[in-house]
Amino acid sequence: MTIKAGIVGYGNLGQGVEYLINSLDDFELFGIFSRRETLDTDADVYPVEDAAKYKDDIDVMFLCVGSATDIPDQATGFAEHFTTVDTYDNHSKVAEHRAAMHKVAQANDNVAVVSTGWDPGLFSMNRVLGLSLFPEPVQNTFWGKGLSQGHSDAVRQVQGVKRGVQYTIPAQDAIDQARAGNGQGLSKTQAHDRIVYIVADAADHDRIREEIVSMPAYFEPYDTTVHFISEEEFERDHQGAPHGGHVITTGNLQGHNASVEFSLDLESNPNFTAAAMVAFGRAAARLKAQGQSGAFTVLEVPPYLLSPQSLDDLLKSEII
Amino acid sequence: MTIKAGIVGYGNLGQGVEYLINSLDDFELFGIFSRRETLDTDADVYPVEDAAKYKDDIDVMFLCVGSATDIPDQATGFAEHFTTVDTYDNHSKVAEHRAAMHKVAQANDNVAVVSTGWDPGLFSMNRVLGLSLFPEPVQNTFWGKGLSQGHSDAVRQVQGVKRGVQYTIPAQDAIDQARAGNGQGLSKTQAHDRIVYIVADAADHDRIREEIVSMPAYFEPYDTTVHFISEEEFERDHQGAPHGGHVITTGNLQGHNASVEFSLDLESNPNFTAAAMVAFGRAAARLKAQGQSGAFTVLEVPPYLLSPQSLDDLLKSEII
Ligand SMILES: NC(=O)c1ccc[n+]([C@@H]2O[C@H](COP(=O)([O-])OP(=O)(O)OC[C@H]3O[C@@H](n4cnc5c(N)ncnc54)[C@H](OP(=O)(O)O)[C@@H]3O)[C@@H](O)[C@H]2O)c1
Ligand SMILES: NC(=O)c1ccc[n+]([C@@H]2O[C@H](COP(=O)([O-])OP(=O)(O)OC[C@H]3O[C@@H](n4cnc5c(N)ncnc54)[C@H](OP(=O)(O)O)[C@@H]3O)[C@@H](O)[C@H]2O)c1
Repeated sequence: MTIKAGIVGYGNLGQGVEYLINSLDDFELFGIFSRRETLDTDADVYPVEDAAKYKDDIDVMFLCVGSATDIPDQATGFAEHFTTVDTYDNHSKVAEHRAAMHKVAQANDNVAVVSTGWDPGLFSMNRVLGLSLFPEPVQNTFWGKGLSQGHSDAVRQVQGVKRGVQYTIPAQDAIDQARAGNGQGLSKTQAHDRIVYIVADAADHDRIREEIVSMPAYFEPYDTTVHFISEEEFERDHQGAPHGGHVITTGNLQGHNASVEFSLDLESNPNFTAAAMVAFGRAAARLKAQGQSGAFTVLEVPPYLLSPQSLDDLLKSEII
Repeated sequence: MTIKAGIVGYGNLGQGVEYLINSLDDFELFGIFSRRETLDTDADVYPVEDAAKYKDDIDVMFLCVGSATDIPDQATGFAEHFTTVDTYDNHSKVAEHRAAMHKVAQANDNVAVVSTGWDPGLFSMNRVLGLSLFPEPVQNTFWGKGLSQGHSDAVRQVQGVKRGVQYTIPAQDAIDQARAGNGQGLSKTQAHDRIVYIVADAADHDRIREEIVSMPAYFEPYDTTVHFISEEEFERDHQGAPHGGHVITTGNLQGHNASVEFSLDLESNPNFTAAAMVAFGRAAARLKAQGQSGAFTVLEVPPYLLSPQSLDDLLKSEII
């Protein structure tokens, strides 16, 4: 079975999904649906408002629009006509989003796999797994090394900053503590450091550093390091969107410690989000083909459905 | 719902399961079924041949007998009367075991969750997940630091060895290579070192070391280090059964590397195997309560079923 895919929204995520669909043998790309008229792509581009016309040509629609307003506004509209997958990342509203998608998807005999990606997504799966293993689990999530858009915007507001970028990195001593079973009560602030790269005139360096490290909420509670670099270094080393992190769970079993860790080290956050999304898109198409309908979170998808191999092939392989 | 549990076989694994069942709020222990008449436990002990009499008292039976012959000989007999979970670890026969259990479990309206634990088990899940994410994934599994029974037996055969133990440890340079995306073609030999602790008379040390490191298949192909220690150190430091390892998968996404890693660091192999088994035992009882029947590998179980929390509670929590 080749899965015919549509993509809604052509930002970072949509481009990452397009690349994967074109690289994978079990998918083929029908086209991209956008609010913009022209996109820089070889794929067929359609106005997003015409999407429903193509409902019979598409097995799974990848909703690659923003989580802030696009998904709440538009996702159920797509679930009416298509089996969908999204990366909705508003953690406190996943239940609400799932419920809204469930109602529409079920009524229209579609499947909607919601809030995939890595966090929510793969990290959610691993948090649930870790917490299921021990009578008294201790669990910590660390994020980074990761580019933070909000904090980068904040440093760029400081007077004299020509260019600036901020990365969040897990504090190594906090990771060590978590792995050793002593992560209980570690705050997000203790668990993370902030590192900032700035291009600015030498005369401004001391003031800029001081203004950044003392910025309330954003930097003041954290261990923050500010590096001043040249324009060339900035161009060369700070154009990417790295991210990743660790979900660490420990438990004590009759006096014996056990530590369970899931880690991601990603040179590109949107590309990897797309990779996780595409695997769950495969699962969505298969659930639909199995005759299922309604919404599924990543917690509800049996893992074999993510694989390009069949269950029989997986069982016969060395993988299991 | 409290899950009423039975345990078949009271070795390391069975004792680990007993501890967990007694520690967890959602389980209660009915009793232990053994081939031996008396066991050192406060639980009720029954002759294993009487098990079927108690079929209505037990929601899930934990098959904690050996994989070598007990599971192939006995597991289907239990699947006739009980919903079961096992840790059958003969990787090349998982498909066969699943098929045999499926037939019997389905015919008797029971659920059988097979080959749980950590490898097979959690490592299998993570191998499938990792391989599902990239067009051209590169994947390596590393085992250890882990006590190896077979290799420990082998060193104890060397003349003059009073006590001896062998640990397999992943080679750090091989782990680094795998994380960086260069794990393709790494052999099991390159990826692992062997470390041996021996108690022996000083006069024998050189000869013993030489005999061990040159032992064909067991040690010769590996980087092997032999440490001679005192009887007291052996007693103090080498009574445990540590194990663990790493499943590392990398992929390239439009020129951007991504590394996905699942790691276990376990002070006690059987205790953690029991922890994974109990989580899948919970899933088995729930699958049965949902009206399902037949055999399931860990790849076929939706992750939320492992959790002591309900799906609704998980969705409303910060976990997802
Ligand atoms: N779950 C996770 O792990 C995870 C991780 C990362 C991100 N996410 C989610 O993924 C969502 C999408 O991320 P993204 O990086 O793809 O966001 P983005 O690049 O800002 O794109 C979002 C939308 O904006 C429009 N757009 C993009 N570039 C544009 C441009 N140059 N001019 C005008 N419009 C443009 C596109 O829609 P049109 O084509 O219709 O114009 C696109 O779908 C985020 O909202 C985030 O919530 C989830
Ligand atoms: N999937 C995984 O990740 C994983 C990891 C580790 C182990 N495993 C599997 O788990 C299986 C069980 O491991 P285990 O460590 O529990 O093995 P074990 O301690 O050797 O116990 C196996 C069986 O031997 C009997 N036995 C135990 N102690 C005995 C004693 N002192 N005298 C006589 N009989 C005794 C018990 O049956 P009775 O009570 O009926 O006598 C017990 O069920 C292994 O075969 C292995 O395949 C799987």
